[in-house]
Amino acid sequence: MTERWYDDLSVGQKFESKPYKVTAAEIRSFARRYDPQTFHLDAKKAEGTVFRGLAASGWHTGAVTMRLLVEGELRVAGGHVGLGLDELRWPLAVRPGDVLRLVSEIVELRASKSRPDRGIARLKHVTTNQKGETVMSFVSTQLVPRRRD
Amino acid sequence: MTERWYDDLSVGQKFESKPYKVTAAEIRSFARRYDPQTFHLDAKKAEGTVFRGLAASGWHTGAVTMRLLVEGELRVAGGHVGLGLDELRWPLAVRPGDVLRLVSEIVELRASKSRPDRGIARLKHVTTNQKGETVMSFVSTQLVPRRRD
Repeated sequence: MTERWYDDLSVGQKFESKPYKVTAAEIRSFARRYDPQTFHLDAKKAEGTVFRGLAASGWHTGAVTMRLLVEGELRVAGGHVGLGLDELRWPLAVRPGDVLRLVSEIVELRASKSRPDRGIARLKHVTTNQKGETVMSFVSTQLVPRRRD
Repeated sequence: MTERWYDDLSVGQKFESKPYKVTAAEIRSFARRYDPQTFHLDAKKAEGTVFRGLAASGWHTGAVTMRLLVEGELRVAGGHVGLGLDELRWPLAVRPGDVLRLVSEIVELRASKSRPDRGIARLKHVTTNQKGETVMSFVSTQLVPRRRD
């Protein structure tokens, strides 16, 4: 997989990920540590909540999405360094057994005025389940180094 | 700790968290699973990266922040159910040994037109380290049930 620099990117490029299967055990394990709420921990009790069954923490879905990005087609020189996220939405819960995939698209590029050795890329990320339904979407702002030749 | 319904909330209310110490072992453990990049995995190699040393994944900082919210002063009836996040920023990296705290403020409240049994709350969250520096901030949009009496 080729490492890409700021100069290799253009608006409209899309990058795909591998699939990632989320198990009930992983949902509970993440939740015990970082989001210990009933609907992420206990399938039976979760039936009586707004989720109507066990659902992954939104932060868990985000963490899996990061893994899909890091291991996906877009290898950024120096790594994925995020400054922030905007318009993050969780339209649908991730359920045990769901298989997630990520598509990331370059939506904006701008050179840094103060730092000629880097640029700023904005990417729109959409995480879908095995039915093609969107479970999460957001726009990231990332630092990307410029080629030094 | 009292459970709060939509009707108990007002704009300007602030809620604090307990402290949470982030260790190097936890930074590496989260990164191995969800963000396997050098600057989150290897303190020595991280020195030569943009982070100049081991730094927590931004998603890890987010996950810890969720834990601080769930165990903090604001107990929402039915739990914290997030629809999305906006304006998320990571202005400073979280380092091994950092002690994080969260302050969450209600910034907007609106009743649901279609669902009289719930409202929408927007909260501004600021996660700081032991020096009081902001390591992460964002605005969440959450579902909050209305009192049924």
